[in-house]
Amino acid sequence: MLILSFESSAKSASVALTDDGELVGEYTLCTALTHSRTLLPMAENLLKNTEISMNDIDLFACAYGPGSFTGIRIGVATVKGLAWALNKPCVGVSTLEAMSWHGVSSQEIICPVMDARRSQVYNALFQIKNGKPERIREDRAISTDELISDIRSLTDNPVFLVGDGMKVAQNAFTKAGIPFTAAPGNLAYQTAWGVAMAAGDKVPGTADDLLPVYLRLSQAERERNERLAKEQAEAAEETK
Amino acid sequence: MLILSFESSAKSASVALTDDGELVGEYTLCTALTHSRTLLPMAENLLKNTEISMNDIDLFACAYGPGSFTGIRIGVATVKGLAWALNKPCVGVSTLEAMSWHGVSSQEIICPVMDARRSQVYNALFQIKNGKPERIREDRAISTDELISDIRSLTDNPVFLVGDGMKVAQNAFTKAGIPFTAAPGNLAYQTAWGVAMAAGDKVPGTADDLLPVYLRLSQAERERNERLAKEQAEAAEETK
Repeated sequence: MLILSFESSAKSASVALTDDGELVGEYTLCTALTHSRTLLPMAENLLKNTEISMNDIDLFACAYGPGSFTGIRIGVATVKGLAWALNKPCVGVSTLEAMSWHGVSSQEIICPVMDARRSQVYNALFQIKNGKPERIREDRAISTDELISDIRSLTDNPVFLVGDGMKVAQNAFTKAGIPFTAAPGNLAYQTAWGVAMAAGDKVPGTADDLLPVYLRLSQAERERNERLAKEQAEAAEETK
Repeated sequence: MLILSFESSAKSASVALTDDGELVGEYTLCTALTHSRTLLPMAENLLKNTEISMNDIDLFACAYGPGSFTGIRIGVATVKGLAWALNKPCVGVSTLEAMSWHGVSSQEIICPVMDARRSQVYNALFQIKNGKPERIREDRAISTDELISDIRSLTDNPVFLVGDGMKVAQNAFTKAGIPFTAAPGNLAYQTAWGVAMAAGDKVPGTADDLLPVYLRLSQAERERNERLAKEQAEAAEETK
């Protein structure tokens, strides 16, 4: 089965083509350039160089989040568009689960960490069992302090750190005396290979089923909710 | 320092752009298509998408072997051509050393294995020290039996297997009771990221200095030597 996978939920833009789980090709950029401009041309170039047409693809996959709101939307919209136009199945996977595949040859607890701003990280925990990441903690937005105490409750052994929040986590872990192994430079950030691996055992759906998973409200929604709460409070004050 | 790295010594064709050791982008194909047709267009596309020009590159790097004779020549010739035309430094690294970087977060002895045909594998051994692969064995062409007895003399712990000879080695190691961890699918084959990492601490030279390292004679040379030896023997016989 040919899977074309997309990852654009953070800094990296990545496209991978896999055939029954084997990597046929991967194209990854870790630049600050707009994913909306690079992602589809990268996929097109990858398919051209592997002499495979969009029509040959059996399944389209992407990371549905958490991550940058715009980044996630670009990945999800791209895959929805392709699946809808070509009438093919598609599937979304957790950005954190996809990244946990970067530690698949590790014995350690896999700890993907993405910078979620506002003093938080997006995180989940996994352990490799039978050659696959098995989930220990659901995707969550937590502080590094909460993460540290959760890891303390689980293990004294080193954890395998991966993701764009790695530097923040490394500093906090070093201060707290939590031992860790850092993912090497080619595995530090999200890749579409991880998405393809995580997609392997998911049940595909249609373009309609695929939705982003933000984990948190966007800044616009937060500000709107705060404004509404304030207005309600003022209204309540007036009617007293 | 911007390094543009090429890896084409076996099945995979790979191009990577790194900036002071950080991955900016990587493009890898693991298909049977001709590297001579794909390698330079891949580099061109990668540079276009990262908005960097060939002239901005500070160093060109490639794997100089061992590997496929044609594959090595394509990589070396590409880098020689670019370095010569742009009057920039270039450097070659061992294919096996480049691949050993795929195990850089491993505690185990790193064992890159490439299929060398004629019942042999290209191999070297490394151990990670201070975050870098340190060489334990020089590049060599040996049988899997020789490799197994060499590993037995070094360790009882699992070794980290990587490379296109992995399947051959896995079978032999399992039979011999040698424990191992196999590199995951995205690290199984050569990548230009590995070349970039290995190039980091090498002394660059000019296009003239860069030469392929085949480790063994090519089939044509072997046949020529056999023919010459036979002719000499016949001549000696006649003059008796």
